[in-house]
Amino acid sequence: MATKIKIGILGYGNLGKATELAIKNNDDMELVSIFTRRNPSELKSITNSKVVSVNELSNYKDKIDVLVLCGGSATDLPTQTPEFAKMFNVIDSFDTHARIPEHFANVNKSAKESNHVALISCGWDPGAFSLNRLMAEAFLPNGNSYTFWGKGVSQGHSDAIRRIKGVKNAVQYTVPIEKAVNSVRNGENPKFTTREKHLRECYVVAEEGANKEEIEKEIKTMKNYFDEYDTTVNFISEEELKEKHSKMPHGGFVIRSGKTGLNGENNEIIEYSLKLDSNPEFTASVLIAYARAVYRLKEKGDFGGKTVFDIPPALLSRKTQEELLKEML
Amino acid sequence: MATKIKIGILGYGNLGKATELAIKNNDDMELVSIFTRRNPSELKSITNSKVVSVNELSNYKDKIDVLVLCGGSATDLPTQTPEFAKMFNVIDSFDTHARIPEHFANVNKSAKESNHVALISCGWDPGAFSLNRLMAEAFLPNGNSYTFWGKGVSQGHSDAIRRIKGVKNAVQYTVPIEKAVNSVRNGENPKFTTREKHLRECYVVAEEGANKEEIEKEIKTMKNYFDEYDTTVNFISEEELKEKHSKMPHGGFVIRSGKTGLNGENNEIIEYSLKLDSNPEFTASVLIAYARAVYRLKEKGDFGGKTVFDIPPALLSRKTQEELLKEML
Repeated sequence: MATKIKIGILGYGNLGKATELAIKNNDDMELVSIFTRRNPSELKSITNSKVVSVNELSNYKDKIDVLVLCGGSATDLPTQTPEFAKMFNVIDSFDTHARIPEHFANVNKSAKESNHVALISCGWDPGAFSLNRLMAEAFLPNGNSYTFWGKGVSQGHSDAIRRIKGVKNAVQYTVPIEKAVNSVRNGENPKFTTREKHLRECYVVAEEGANKEEIEKEIKTMKNYFDEYDTTVNFISEEELKEKHSKMPHGGFVIRSGKTGLNGENNEIIEYSLKLDSNPEFTASVLIAYARAVYRLKEKGDFGGKTVFDIPPALLSRKTQEELLKEML
Repeated sequence: MATKIKIGILGYGNLGKATELAIKNNDDMELVSIFTRRNPSELKSITNSKVVSVNELSNYKDKIDVLVLCGGSATDLPTQTPEFAKMFNVIDSFDTHARIPEHFANVNKSAKESNHVALISCGWDPGAFSLNRLMAEAFLPNGNSYTFWGKGVSQGHSDAIRRIKGVKNAVQYTVPIEKAVNSVRNGENPKFTTREKHLRECYVVAEEGANKEEIEKEIKTMKNYFDEYDTTVNFISEEELKEKHSKMPHGGFVIRSGKTGLNGENNEIIEYSLKLDSNPEFTASVLIAYARAVYRLKEKGDFGGKTVFDIPPALLSRKTQEELLKEML
């Protein structure tokens, strides 16, 4: 039997846990260890995997083929990915779109200097959605692209509500407006304001005695997060929040509406959509498929910073070229 | 200004014409000439492009970067693609799924021996649909994939009807069964018989005095083409056929329904769908995007047989790496 691809996980939050589970779905891979900044003895993994302190990571240089970085984009990944690309082949899900060029430059430099492969901004957006934006635009240069997100939980928006005084807990759903989606699907090539594309639905647990009217007003007028959207605020109990809103569903649509023909008389619509029960588990599943590609690039000696745009799709599959030609094309 | 990619078109049927139009949508490309087996003086192209006999093709060895082969899969491409891959970088839309491995082997040999790039089986199926089948399976290994085609005109089935005695003209639509599509979208992971996935809708112009009952029976019982489907046959006039059924719409869905989580408790659905007013124009648009990739592989000296599975998506786009990182990821 062929040697398995040896995976390490750094960070054991939602994404780290989901990555541990995703590896179980791919029997050409094995999890070497989870690395954590917490006290490893206090952390028990879902599948009883080995848990080790991040301080020991450098001892694993020759024991791990690909290190999956499961930290956050705000403060962890901007330093972790360039740092660990000096020692390991790495993959991350860095998703602060505006800072991607800077992050790529840092990671690429580390990876090139140390002969490693480092793939950034993987998952579904950035990731699978980005690929579909690129390919659909290349196929239909004369057209418009639209991305809709949801219905799904936005962690950033939920956090923003939780920071409001008097709020005990909160979950925020981003909801694509069906009328807008249908207009795009019909090839109408509409122009949208922010408000016309998505709604924001908030479920809020208030502290006892808190001023609910004030909270609602503060949410709805919050700059960048809510002020440009139609927002609904529902106050519920902690029990109801736990029972009905503790899952992390998400999804969305990338639609390209393009014109072909001598005078653009024909409409061609490409739509890529995701309907996910678990946002972190799907993200981790994509990361793990790309970890296979990272491993193969490493074997070929094709080092440096990479994104999903650079990866020939065949490298994601466990199938041989013969099988792909016969079964998948 | 950068030099344009010089394209040649071999074969001027529906796909050749559509390729001529697709080039117009990509101003980094120029059409050098259309090559035909017919008498070139009798052929006038849609955009007044140069038309030359196929016998002169060898004189264009250094004048064409990528030759787009627009012949048919039954008899043209199996010989044309390996033959012309000896002289040119080529791309074809070979779509006889069962013969792809053999075709690839022949083309790969020619291209490797002569230092050319030859990409086969490009378009939407095989092509964009194949990519989505591969990637969705890699993302969700624990799941099922479904491909539905239509609603759209099947040239092969229309031809088969036209060969029946007493039939003057005919158009056949392949129609996905909505109930089946919805069951897949709901994550039910159904198993289908052929009959449960697609319907066949036929519009037939009978010759005067022909036995319509006989024709209908012959269509519905035709082996491989119709006998395993629920088929409806509508007799109409030649005028009505021309008026209502002369366009070539098509489309379809590739859906992957997969499970993630410790015990497969979460459903994740990936759907890629196309809704096309013009099947040949969209196919040509995809071919032309991949012609750009063929050109770039040639520039890098990465010769040999290729499929869409081998192409890093970045090579399809006109955007620079900087632009892709900033705008598309």
